[in-house]
Amino acid sequence: MSSFYPVMLRLEGKKVVVVGGGKVAERKVSGLLESGAHLTVISPEATAAIQRLAGEDKIVWQQKLFSVEDIQDAFMIFAATNDRQLNQLVKDCADDQQLVTIADDPNESNFHLPALFKRGRLCIAVSTGGASPTLARKIREQLEQQFDESYVAYMDFLFSKRQWILEEVKDASLKKRLLTAIVSLDSLNSESREKDFQRLYKELDSEAGTLD
Amino acid sequence: MSSFYPVMLRLEGKKVVVVGGGKVAERKVSGLLESGAHLTVISPEATAAIQRLAGEDKIVWQQKLFSVEDIQDAFMIFAATNDRQLNQLVKDCADDQQLVTIADDPNESNFHLPALFKRGRLCIAVSTGGASPTLARKIREQLEQQFDESYVAYMDFLFSKRQWILEEVKDASLKKRLLTAIVSLDSLNSESREKDFQRLYKELDSEAGTLD
Repeated sequence: MSSFYPVMLRLEGKKVVVVGGGKVAERKVSGLLESGAHLTVISPEATAAIQRLAGEDKIVWQQKLFSVEDIQDAFMIFAATNDRQLNQLVKDCADDQQLVTIADDPNESNFHLPALFKRGRLCIAVSTGGASPTLARKIREQLEQQFDESYVAYMDFLFSKRQWILEEVKDASLKKRLLTAIVSLDSLNSESREKDFQRLYKELDSEAGTLD
Repeated sequence: MSSFYPVMLRLEGKKVVVVGGGKVAERKVSGLLESGAHLTVISPEATAAIQRLAGEDKIVWQQKLFSVEDIQDAFMIFAATNDRQLNQLVKDCADDQQLVTIADDPNESNFHLPALFKRGRLCIAVSTGGASPTLARKIREQLEQQFDESYVAYMDFLFSKRQWILEEVKDASLKKRLLTAIVSLDSLNSESREKDFQRLYKELDSEAGTLD
């Protein structure tokens, strides 16, 4: 058995096409909104939510039947109609390099979506490789409890500190030690993490100085 | 800020090209071995491990400098040399639909790899969106403890039961209840999970019968 290979895609500015306008298509669209992709829905009919998003110019809704030109130049394609034959046709029209998935038909898809949750920049994805989507969701819920809302600000803190370290700290060894040490600061819920970081930096910096 | 979009790729039979033959390339290659991809390494030199894999016909090693034809028809490309300009060239040679990543340069990549671990079919992936790869690894290690080796057999059990249910159970409502119920069996470490499943099936089946 070949196993699935998880990647984090950067979809910013990429053309993503969802064929279908029902509840399944709507779920795919809402999962894609934050990705920065150029989202197009192809369907003669669409749910109220899809219509609203199109009205707000967050997505494009082409109110039409599917035709092969619709997926030209698409980076990623979701065949998400309730018509199996049409879904298969969409997939058959895609070329070998395009990412294409048929809702509920993993064997005909070259990618599938894991169960996932986000806490700001933190993203945890769970897949059971077809063994049990129910268990994947259950584990996702368990991890959501474990990694709570406090991670949102913590991730922003780590992000800004890492950027600062990468730009400002020239000494390679000090850089490495700092990047490791900020995670050990135990500052997930600390009000003083900014101060703690400054102290840590001074400590490591003066140590590095002594070693020179 | 646009956020990354996690997907599970099916790489079976796909052409995947790793440009570079050093330690970084080696790590990418070993992470790809189980995916079923057709793996090609392009590099004048290669680590012992890459050479061994090529000798065992698990990958193809083309002992040469990179040229644009090397990535033609590739589904996925890793620019993993220690030469930033060459990595950038590889990326520039890729077309817009190809998945391409430059090691250590997320801004120039259209995907990146999360920290991840597998327990048989279970796969959990952690990404911090550039905030802290160190924290991503730390969380990965924590989850590895939490989801231990016993999940391997458990996932196989769930997989085979789900296949059986999808094929054998005709009643849609019974099917749905069974798929939910097997996860609640609390059979992660149970020696009697096969028996428990048979009992559960009989129970739900006879209930469904009464309701008809």
